[in-house]
Amino acid sequence: MNAPLTNELLHQHERRPVPPVMLQALRERFGERCSTVTAVREQHGRDESPFPVTPPDAVVYCLSTEEVAFVVSQASAHGVPVIPFGVGSSLEGHLLAVQGGVSIDLSRMDSVVRVNAEDLTVTVQAGVTREQLNREIKDMGLFFPIDPGANASLGGMAATRASGTNAVRYGTMRENVLGLTVVTASGEVIHTGTRAKKSSAGYDLTRLFVGSEGTLGVMTEVTLKLYPLPEAVSAAICHFPTIGGAVNATIQLIQMGVPIARCELLDANAVRAVNAQSKLGLRESPMLLMEFHGSEAGVKEQAETVQAIASDMGGENFEWASTPEERTRLWTARHKAYFAGMSTHPGCRTVTTDTCVPISRLAEILEASVDEADASGLPYYIVGHVGDGNFHLAYLVKEGDAEQRAVAERLSMQMVHRALALEGTCTGEHGIGLHKMGFLVDEAGAGAVAMMRDIKRALDPGNIMNPGKIFSI
Amino acid sequence: MNAPLTNELLHQHERRPVPPVMLQALRERFGERCSTVTAVREQHGRDESPFPVTPPDAVVYCLSTEEVAFVVSQASAHGVPVIPFGVGSSLEGHLLAVQGGVSIDLSRMDSVVRVNAEDLTVTVQAGVTREQLNREIKDMGLFFPIDPGANASLGGMAATRASGTNAVRYGTMRENVLGLTVVTASGEVIHTGTRAKKSSAGYDLTRLFVGSEGTLGVMTEVTLKLYPLPEAVSAAICHFPTIGGAVNATIQLIQMGVPIARCELLDANAVRAVNAQSKLGLRESPMLLMEFHGSEAGVKEQAETVQAIASDMGGENFEWASTPEERTRLWTARHKAYFAGMSTHPGCRTVTTDTCVPISRLAEILEASVDEADASGLPYYIVGHVGDGNFHLAYLVKEGDAEQRAVAERLSMQMVHRALALEGTCTGEHGIGLHKMGFLVDEAGAGAVAMMRDIKRALDPGNIMNPGKIFSI
Repeated sequence: MNAPLTNELLHQHERRPVPPVMLQALRERFGERCSTVTAVREQHGRDESPFPVTPPDAVVYCLSTEEVAFVVSQASAHGVPVIPFGVGSSLEGHLLAVQGGVSIDLSRMDSVVRVNAEDLTVTVQAGVTREQLNREIKDMGLFFPIDPGANASLGGMAATRASGTNAVRYGTMRENVLGLTVVTASGEVIHTGTRAKKSSAGYDLTRLFVGSEGTLGVMTEVTLKLYPLPEAVSAAICHFPTIGGAVNATIQLIQMGVPIARCELLDANAVRAVNAQSKLGLRESPMLLMEFHGSEAGVKEQAETVQAIASDMGGENFEWASTPEERTRLWTARHKAYFAGMSTHPGCRTVTTDTCVPISRLAEILEASVDEADASGLPYYIVGHVGDGNFHLAYLVKEGDAEQRAVAERLSMQMVHRALALEGTCTGEHGIGLHKMGFLVDEAGAGAVAMMRDIKRALDPGNIMNPGKIFSI
Repeated sequence: MNAPLTNELLHQHERRPVPPVMLQALRERFGERCSTVTAVREQHGRDESPFPVTPPDAVVYCLSTEEVAFVVSQASAHGVPVIPFGVGSSLEGHLLAVQGGVSIDLSRMDSVVRVNAEDLTVTVQAGVTREQLNREIKDMGLFFPIDPGANASLGGMAATRASGTNAVRYGTMRENVLGLTVVTASGEVIHTGTRAKKSSAGYDLTRLFVGSEGTLGVMTEVTLKLYPLPEAVSAAICHFPTIGGAVNATIQLIQMGVPIARCELLDANAVRAVNAQSKLGLRESPMLLMEFHGSEAGVKEQAETVQAIASDMGGENFEWASTPEERTRLWTARHKAYFAGMSTHPGCRTVTTDTCVPISRLAEILEASVDEADASGLPYYIVGHVGDGNFHLAYLVKEGDAEQRAVAERLSMQMVHRALALEGTCTGEHGIGLHKMGFLVDEAGAGAVAMMRDIKRALDPGNIMNPGKIFSI
């Protein structure tokens, strides 16, 4: 079993700094949009992981695919790393400039390029966030369901193969990206996919880039599937005396094929945290937060089925959130759970797990992980996209406390070990980044990782695209 | 615009025959399961395309992943092509041994390895057919929806990224393969994916192999998603005075988000053919054949919505197929449409198109293509997975009639040109094979195809895996 990557390994990389001639070229082209200011570099050299800040040498704010191509061409010519940056919400060290280089900030590429409402597709620049997209298409009666909690950029979500609360019904970025505009490692621009719903035309480059974490090229535009806003939406919460009860109810409703749109678990610690932050007055016991989409009758029918299952599994206080305001309040609380959990222990950062297992094994891994977390004495909380078999146990460790961090990393490793033994994955939606490189080998095997490396070497022979992530080369 | 590949181009390849020492090794290991009999080789050197038979030098019937690895290791050592073979139902020349070599027949790898009903997953050997799988899991209340019409092998379906009648609701092989066992070009065995529903663990090798048409490795086992048999199923047919009416009804129901399970178009020629073959007595006008899956109430609601839409679009004679027997009769007829269509013109083979466009452009491309087909004087018929924007126009050409073939190829090329202009794809589900290599460049662009080639070269440096397909190297 490989250990997770910890801080000291960050320093094993050789830096490949931006040479003066390249910096000069970037300054000439981008003016003030090329920055070497320390604060800007530091902001781009971190994410939500507990790794220390590891800044790039320069940050360039690009406005177009052509500008990205210019930066990458320069980087290619000078053998300098480039790291695509969206909003900085990733969790596994993806954005750290372990070999120096240029951070390409895509946040100003924030145009919704084209909505094709009649085809249920949209093309966006990579820096558009999911909340912005949903605001812009709401009046057309459409929505984009993928929702990882954070208001991430759609390029970043594609890069990490993100999913979140709606994935149980609508799939992940894997299922919802139709096509991409990509700047390759040599600075060329290619397009993958079409606006057709399906295709058998050659290798699935779209899905090769989705989840490639910036290591194969820079995605600058993303074409996505959209969905009609459901005729009816209702949400419900249900409390359970134990996590096992909540999970067993989930397992049963998934096995029955109930087309539930969202099925989220919060443990008592997470409920306590969101209560404290959002004054919700929820009962502080394990809880499912569910949402149903469909026709009026269909939603009612789903909810009745789920209520009956929940009741069988010891569920209590099944409550409806019938108004949009009440629903928004609950989902806002859910989305804030990550930061709410952190705020219960000021001065802490989280070590967050992301295992995903076949649905029938979910109770087993959750219960064992809770027992271990309780025994460790570390504070923690759990939120889970349990309908997918995916959950996050966030250990709270004091910033800079190496001993606590080591305990959390050991627990995380044990959980991954357990998930792999249950035929699951070390990461359902966060990606490998730096932190899980060892786990990837345990999960996929040396042969499959060698194949990934072969692909990387073929498409990025100079190893300039976000080097040091997913695997070392 | 590139032309489709026609017969003469088949002969531009240099053959790489199996050397005697390798044949000897295969015979020692496989005995009678290694055949060089002409009839066997010819059976393996063709598919349902109009290309002439191009047989391999030898056929090996493998029973296990290890046996496949042995054959590939031999081929790798001797620089000999290998071509994976399922049931031979592909349509684009995928199976032709254009450079000679060994056909690896996987049809005897026909075990359902493991059903995990509680997780809605199954692992099968690559030679299991979709009908066999559905027979074996029916009593567990489960089904596998992907249905390309032919009783194809699941390995072959993964290799061509197949879809078919249920894809409008359940997705294609792209969405329904969870993991693979693959023999790589060097004869190593790797596993991709896990049984978890989603994962962000490294490059999506699973989806790189799905649709790779045997050019990157041999898939020997496939792990698939399953679905609970719906509580209620109903089917309906509706006739329209014009194809445009049928398609516009489809467009509207897709745009409204009706979760229809199947939505198939048959033009008057196709209806005539299935009537003649299956004695159905259907009215010989354009027709939609639809199926609804869900709860009793949900199915009723969907069907009412669709009936109202169809009626608005000029639909007539909306009829229910309420009994399972009646449904089976209709779907059997639909599945036989390909051969029924051919049998209307004995001595003909088909040149079949497979364009897929954004749903709003479907009427436009269909109507223009019908006008062109009518003007050509060639007999033809149309069947379409119109809910996905995908349809097949099959031109019937006399076997060996070069002039008719040329007319059909020209019409096919015009249709692809039109589909690409409408932001669609040249192939929704059949793959590139030999026939559409030129179209792939038109669709994806030279840069994207160069990237596919780079991947191919990295994973198969000896170019032994089904060489000459998708692109020339």
